[in-house]
Amino acid sequence: MARIGCPYGTHRVMEPQGVLPQPAWKIDNTMEIYDNELLIEVDTLNIDAASFTQIKKAVENDSGAMERMMLDIVEKRGKHHNPITGSGGMLMGTVSRIGPAWTGQLPVKVGDRIATLVSLSLTPLKIRKIKKIHVEKEQVEVDAQAILFSSGIYAVLPLDMSPSLALAVLDVAGAPAQTAHLVRPGQNVLIIGGGGKSGMLCLYEAKKRAGVTGKVIGLGSGKGSCDRMRQLGYADEVLQVDATDPLQVMKAVSKVTNGQMVDVTINCVNIPNTEMASIMATKDKGTVYFFSMATSFTGAALGAEGIGKDVTMLVGNGYCRNHAIVALETLRESPILWKIFHDLYA
Amino acid sequence: MARIGCPYGTHRVMEPQGVLPQPAWKIDNTMEIYDNELLIEVDTLNIDAASFTQIKKAVENDSGAMERMMLDIVEKRGKHHNPITGSGGMLMGTVSRIGPAWTGQLPVKVGDRIATLVSLSLTPLKIRKIKKIHVEKEQVEVDAQAILFSSGIYAVLPLDMSPSLALAVLDVAGAPAQTAHLVRPGQNVLIIGGGGKSGMLCLYEAKKRAGVTGKVIGLGSGKGSCDRMRQLGYADEVLQVDATDPLQVMKAVSKVTNGQMVDVTINCVNIPNTEMASIMATKDKGTVYFFSMATSFTGAALGAEGIGKDVTMLVGNGYCRNHAIVALETLRESPILWKIFHDLYA
Repeated sequence: MARIGCPYGTHRVMEPQGVLPQPAWKIDNTMEIYDNELLIEVDTLNIDAASFTQIKKAVENDSGAMERMMLDIVEKRGKHHNPITGSGGMLMGTVSRIGPAWTGQLPVKVGDRIATLVSLSLTPLKIRKIKKIHVEKEQVEVDAQAILFSSGIYAVLPLDMSPSLALAVLDVAGAPAQTAHLVRPGQNVLIIGGGGKSGMLCLYEAKKRAGVTGKVIGLGSGKGSCDRMRQLGYADEVLQVDATDPLQVMKAVSKVTNGQMVDVTINCVNIPNTEMASIMATKDKGTVYFFSMATSFTGAALGAEGIGKDVTMLVGNGYCRNHAIVALETLRESPILWKIFHDLYA
Repeated sequence: MARIGCPYGTHRVMEPQGVLPQPAWKIDNTMEIYDNELLIEVDTLNIDAASFTQIKKAVENDSGAMERMMLDIVEKRGKHHNPITGSGGMLMGTVSRIGPAWTGQLPVKVGDRIATLVSLSLTPLKIRKIKKIHVEKEQVEVDAQAILFSSGIYAVLPLDMSPSLALAVLDVAGAPAQTAHLVRPGQNVLIIGGGGKSGMLCLYEAKKRAGVTGKVIGLGSGKGSCDRMRQLGYADEVLQVDATDPLQVMKAVSKVTNGQMVDVTINCVNIPNTEMASIMATKDKGTVYFFSMATSFTGAALGAEGIGKDVTMLVGNGYCRNHAIVALETLRESPILWKIFHDLYA
């Protein structure tokens, strides 16, 4: 008999009732799929950095105890949802069954190696065995199974790059895809944190879209980050300025744009208190895209109001349609981006 | 000799050096204006609710002690910037001098009665005397002076409504102005918190823009809020649902839109954990406008990613060009809106 679940997975929520799987304390991790679910034979868990660090510290680096702690979390909650940090991670594995009513967003078939791009904090998981914990990579080799709901996002791992290289790109895939949507030919564009992982992909997309008549400005606080942007070659200007200092950022951006400022600012830097610099570097009626998870909502909202600045401010959505395809292709299009990513993350 | 200050007021920052006036601990409140500043004879301070409550509780409702505490804050910081809550408020007064290099955003002349729409937490203020504290209105009658920077936003108080009615509207002026920008004819629009102060103004603007072919849905959790929306008459559908329950909101919105969901969601409800309901009520490729200051940035960003939803999410900017004019006109256009606002806030 057909069993069709909710595309958001509410049919597996055990307690409390009536919530979504992510906020739920416990979900059903029975590995018998509903007709609109997908079953994965999992080989690798990528534990979220905050969660991994918490587990490691709690047991003072004892790998046997780390293993027991991870198994215990999944046993109690039906998912690897760290109760202290509230965070999850992602997984890699091979598709082993696809329900007949599956409505996932990308073509996928049994035998494909995929990475899930939704959090482990909402993914039904059953671990048969932990084989090895790779502390330096924050990865866990497992013999496990997991369920993906129809709304869950995923990417088929490409055959032309290593899983760790692909994962590094997929982790920030939303940023370059959104940059592609926002930037128009001839615009001035500022990428704050342009030497970081998402920042480099955004620099490439911004220059591709703004074109020869546009001006792409990369901003970083450290010398290493600025050197990387220069090596990459997609920024027309590289500015070494502290992004938490709005007045210095405004002055530096004003100088390289002859006082025009920028049409689009993309904030990719994962440190707090950079909202004001983003707002002040942007023209009136311009757009600020906050991709950084360190963004404060009130900092942005009240900051713009406080200086009477009419800018459109966007919350970075980690997902946009086909973002994985766009982000992976970026690396294939640019040999220098491939090389730098390969050296740093492969 | 001409003294031209920075339009953002950095020339008045005393400590620490090199920051903007809002984050500064202390600013210069000398009431001699720079050539691009404006001087106000202040009669009323509207203290921010969080700040007022903190002061009241700290001295157990003793009005003499409240007075001393307020004078002490301004004496120490040069502005009414509550060191505990970090918040300010706004003020009303009469323009008494305008520097020759003033470049403010709206026409203003000496003798105009204005309300500042920037926070007291960045406004140079000198209180000569506190005349009376109106506890129930969280207002303070004062004999004081204040400085407005060229970037500071303000509104000339209209002659056809009482100051308290005008202030109630100006306080949330960004929301209806943004609604006017976002909503197009024929769209489905959801206003979460449509029975509240900003929500009612948004309902009016949304119906005006969506027109007869559009559908405007007002959502509130309480009966009072829903009754108010029905009395107002601008919502095509009124839903009494708890906005912190995303599944119930999704079901209710799906029902009244025949499963289409909405093109634009405007979140005006000042309670936490309503991001997910906003996202799930919205179509793929639709827009969510978060005007609520209770919005969590990560709640919105990770929430949309977690369910693979490609929606544009906007941070509510308290300011957009001419927002005060738009919001005040709203009341004049709608007699029923005027009546309800008058009963509640005048």
